[in-house]
Amino acid sequence: MKKLHLFTPGPTMVPGDVALAGAKDMVHHRTDQFYEIYEECAVKLQTIFETKLRVLTLNSTGSGAMEAAVSNLVSPGETMITFNGGKFGERWTKIGNAYRCNVHEVKYEWSDASTPDKLEQALKDAPDTVGVFTQLSETSSGVLNPIKDLTEIAHAAGKLIIVDAISGLLAHPCPMDDWDLDVLISGSQKGFMMPPGIAFIVLGPRAVEKMEKTDRTGFYFDLVAAIKNDAKRTHPWTSNVSLFQQLNVALDMLLEEGLPNIHKRHEIQGEAVRSAADALGFKRLSEKFPSNVLTPILMPEGIDSTKVAKFMRDEWGIFMAAGQNDYKTKIIRIGTIGYQDYFDTIMGLAAFEMAMKKFGAPIELGVGVKAAQEVFMSYLC
Amino acid sequence: MKKLHLFTPGPTMVPGDVALAGAKDMVHHRTDQFYEIYEECAVKLQTIFETKLRVLTLNSTGSGAMEAAVSNLVSPGETMITFNGGKFGERWTKIGNAYRCNVHEVKYEWSDASTPDKLEQALKDAPDTVGVFTQLSETSSGVLNPIKDLTEIAHAAGKLIIVDAISGLLAHPCPMDDWDLDVLISGSQKGFMMPPGIAFIVLGPRAVEKMEKTDRTGFYFDLVAAIKNDAKRTHPWTSNVSLFQQLNVALDMLLEEGLPNIHKRHEIQGEAVRSAADALGFKRLSEKFPSNVLTPILMPEGIDSTKVAKFMRDEWGIFMAAGQNDYKTKIIRIGTIGYQDYFDTIMGLAAFEMAMKKFGAPIELGVGVKAAQEVFMSYLC
Repeated sequence: MKKLHLFTPGPTMVPGDVALAGAKDMVHHRTDQFYEIYEECAVKLQTIFETKLRVLTLNSTGSGAMEAAVSNLVSPGETMITFNGGKFGERWTKIGNAYRCNVHEVKYEWSDASTPDKLEQALKDAPDTVGVFTQLSETSSGVLNPIKDLTEIAHAAGKLIIVDAISGLLAHPCPMDDWDLDVLISGSQKGFMMPPGIAFIVLGPRAVEKMEKTDRTGFYFDLVAAIKNDAKRTHPWTSNVSLFQQLNVALDMLLEEGLPNIHKRHEIQGEAVRSAADALGFKRLSEKFPSNVLTPILMPEGIDSTKVAKFMRDEWGIFMAAGQNDYKTKIIRIGTIGYQDYFDTIMGLAAFEMAMKKFGAPIELGVGVKAAQEVFMSYLC
Repeated sequence: MKKLHLFTPGPTMVPGDVALAGAKDMVHHRTDQFYEIYEECAVKLQTIFETKLRVLTLNSTGSGAMEAAVSNLVSPGETMITFNGGKFGERWTKIGNAYRCNVHEVKYEWSDASTPDKLEQALKDAPDTVGVFTQLSETSSGVLNPIKDLTEIAHAAGKLIIVDAISGLLAHPCPMDDWDLDVLISGSQKGFMMPPGIAFIVLGPRAVEKMEKTDRTGFYFDLVAAIKNDAKRTHPWTSNVSLFQQLNVALDMLLEEGLPNIHKRHEIQGEAVRSAADALGFKRLSEKFPSNVLTPILMPEGIDSTKVAKFMRDEWGIFMAAGQNDYKTKIIRIGTIGYQDYFDTIMGLAAFEMAMKKFGAPIELGVGVKAAQEVFMSYLC
């Protein structure tokens, strides 16, 4: 028997009711039937993004929304500040370069965060920057960045802040309106409990104003066209109809749970995995700035995380991500987002213990599980 | 978030691919399209039942096949021996009574089995019996009966043996041809990883011969009609088409795993749950005759298993069955059949530990999980 259990930071597990909604009868995207689904989703998304603004949807993954943010807000030759403390911070740099922007990249160790002092220094070094491009949660390192603080600093300098919350939204609060963000981005295959394929982007008034003055490049990710079509409850291109039918169901489930409960759930999940790692004596890469999206566990000397991940995946159907770039073989990332409950997390930790023991880590089985059980019981009982 | 995890001895969890097959286009049951599906299933079922005989299918649950065995093989007033060591042994008695048979019931403690000595005594006490009606695995008590031995004793006395392997098939070997059984029964919602709705029944030559001489009662469960229709690859009534489309997929998955591997999987699962229960210091009802279908764990003094089961189900989405009849409040039955892998079982054990601790059992969290991890690792690593 080969059953699959996903503990990856996206794609995540999808509820059966959401999966089934993808098999509903196809409707045409230029019809009232679709406009109604579109608008139902759009309204529900405002609760998730904590905004009165429109949440635009793109037929792409989150990376498409990142690209749209750059290509619509930064003219070729204009300066943008990026924080490269991981693979996805690096992605802002790569996108900026691909659009011939002048990228001022702040690079630092993956265990570190986009701290206020780093932003203050960057604004001094690149005073002509259009905006600050960062992540809520950096998926490659499991680091949570202090978006609220960064936003205040960026705004004090008269700069835009563009937040990739692709994996971070729903796992951590990131209120668009309360924090007065300029751009907030997410993707469907993370906390939304959805398959991949829809990107979300909210533009604040300063971003819209800047966009209108930008020498914009590109067609598919043209956000002016997206805004114009959104007013008609549609997209510039063919809408991904079946994914919207699924999104409508997933959003109902999320709204029924309620945003505060969703944030609390991820907080408990993160605490449980961190407790388990600590009880087992493992070090965590993002110890100083832990995200609840995932917990990156550092391998003891001599254990290659890609081999552990491959073994768990191929032999047991347990999917956990190894690392990326310099940390490729050095960490196992245990995800805690999507359709994953507390008992799934215990299962993942038990499998992780067994695999680590098999690969020679000096641990006692059950110790991490017990620590997680205790965290869950302190909230559930 | 409310996710459901089934550790019940049927219905069990169903693979996504099997669930999806139930959404295939409907075909009419009196067409070549359906006859082909029917026959594909029939051939695959011969491997599962380890027989060259035809495996008949009924549009009912397993209880329907039990009823068919009685109504087709025992004339009103004829004697049948039943073993009542649990709810399903008792069901043979009830069915016999409903068909006005002369039921010779052997009743005993639920921790006990249908042992050879009990059958020998029953055959002395009811020498005119037509046959012996028993269970491979008694779902209410978690007891495994020695079917091979019972068959030899029944046949030495010239009597038929009718085996309800509804929950037991696939979890334990029960080869129709090798053991020369007369009737072997199962149901779809157990080891088959299927939704409920199809019953299976195989009739050996002695059973067919007796059936032809029986003063048979009833229409829907008329096995003479079933045999006649089976020759035309159809049923006397409307076939449950979508379930057959699912069964065809489920059987492919089972045959790919292979019968010896399936038996081994259940053996390992049973051993793991028993180890966990023992490590936690709990007594098991079926300690002497443990089935791998489920493990019934006796509650410590003062803990009501129906409350534990209800709490796990309502609060956590963890489904385990409490007891039945006299054991209603005294046991939790942890099932290990259907689409349930080793890591699911660990999850179930972790939840069970947490619930028992909450209800005041003097246990240490993680101890049962560790015992199960060790069993799994001894086979998997």
